[in-house]
Amino acid sequence: MEQIPLFERLGGRDGIRAMAERLLENHLQNPLIATRYANGSMDREQLVDGATEFFCTGLSGVPTYEGRPLADVHTGMNIDDAEFVAVLDDAIAAMGSLGVGEREQAEVLHILYSMKGDVVRL
Amino acid sequence: MEQIPLFERLGGRDGIRAMAERLLENHLQNPLIATRYANGSMDREQLVDGATEFFCTGLSGVPTYEGRPLADVHTGMNIDDAEFVAVLDDAIAAMGSLGVGEREQAEVLHILYSMKGDVVRL
Amino acid sequence: MEQIPLFERLGGRDGIRAMAERLLENHLQNPLIATRYANGSMDREQLVDGATEFFCTGLSGVPTYEGRPLADVHTGMNIDDAEFVAVLDDAIAAMGSLGVGEREQAEVLHILYSMKGDVVRL
Amino acid sequence: MEQIPLFERLGGRDGIRAMAERLLENHLQNPLIATRYANGSMDREQLVDGATEFFCTGLSGVPTYEGRPLADVHTGMNIDDAEFVAVLDDAIAAMGSLGVGEREQAEVLHILYSMKGDVVRL
Repeated sequence: MEQIPLFERLGGRDGIRAMAERLLENHLQNPLIATRYANGSMDREQLVDGATEFFCTGLSGVPTYEGRPLADVHTGMNIDDAEFVAVLDDAIAAMGSLGVGEREQAEVLHILYSMKGDVVRL
Repeated sequence: MEQIPLFERLGGRDGIRAMAERLLENHLQNPLIATRYANGSMDREQLVDGATEFFCTGLSGVPTYEGRPLADVHTGMNIDDAEFVAVLDDAIAAMGSLGVGEREQAEVLHILYSMKGDVVRL
Repeated sequence: MEQIPLFERLGGRDGIRAMAERLLENHLQNPLIATRYANGSMDREQLVDGATEFFCTGLSGVPTYEGRPLADVHTGMNIDDAEFVAVLDDAIAAMGSLGVGEREQAEVLHILYSMKGDVVRL
Repeated sequence: MEQIPLFERLGGRDGIRAMAERLLENHLQNPLIATRYANGSMDREQLVDGATEFFCTGLSGVPTYEGRPLADVHTGMNIDDAEFVAVLDDAIAAMGSLGVGEREQAEVLHILYSMKGDVVRL
């Protein structure tokens, strides 16, 4: 089991897309985050596509993500620690509701946390 | 002195515009706020114009402000208390550097603070 | 009216004590602050006494406050901007419910705000 | 390797104590946390002892921790997300400087994160 890549353990592109969809649903219910989507400037389908390809690229090594660098995407948003923690909470809840294993949850949390510098207060 | 309106005590439109300009300069130097302007989507001249007319309208009663309601402007920005406090700090510093009197500073602070509900976490 | 000191306009020691009591009541209802009192280490009567004498000293010039300096009192509490804003909200609500005038509210807010450096993140 | 318990992979009690010591050192250098220790009410040796036994109890199953429940310890401290994130940052830095493996770091981060409810805003 040690050798199976996280990408496969998460169910490949389909599993990752399901997580991205659930994550966005959670964000839209989360009062600390939902306002980000209130002005209608972000298309939901596009957000799920972008997140899916971003994570598939990182985990599979196949460069399908064509969006802007993570740091660019968050420039000007002034995201703080509380909002970042809300994102992590939503991600953990999404994985839990989809039955992702504890070990995979820990690895995903670790990866997400490592991106904090590109998300918070740029 | 009690009867002189705050609008006049602040130096009318010119005084208010000077405060708006100084405030934006402070914001651009303030690490808690400056990132908001990092993506270049906001024109500085336009920001000063908008702030000037917004406050002139509120203080003089002459409706020259043609922008969107304050709450609309901040929708989706997810501004939190720390960022709002940074705005107040910059406003107080701007008034101090322009020699605005203590009493006027208190009145302006009170007015700005009363707008918190339209700025923070909509 | 310009000449009447704020201390008198707030109703002297009695008025200030009423504000301190109402403020503490509000804090105990405020989820952002109430936890501070959860461990029972702070006596409520003592808190009201301290706040009353602190403000009477500052506003009347008669040095009846015998407590520690404000900065000392808050050392180690790690109070952040959000909690400080919650205090200001409670103070404004307290003054409003006691019928304190707009001008006095503005002056008190200005004074409280000027103490931020001794309260937040020491 | 899958079967080796995290307790052993972290180097047992000695490894965990080294992490607790490094973590406290990092906290004392971290401006978002250091003020918590500024009033001298917390003994450093005691803090390291407590953290060591707390984690050894959780990871080894041998109940050597005799302190108060985690939620009790943090009651009244009003710790927010930003301070909690600062703790996680310090923990990751501590593990990195001690050469703890990526997988172990992910598992520890996951465990720490799961304690958020007992640490933040009780």
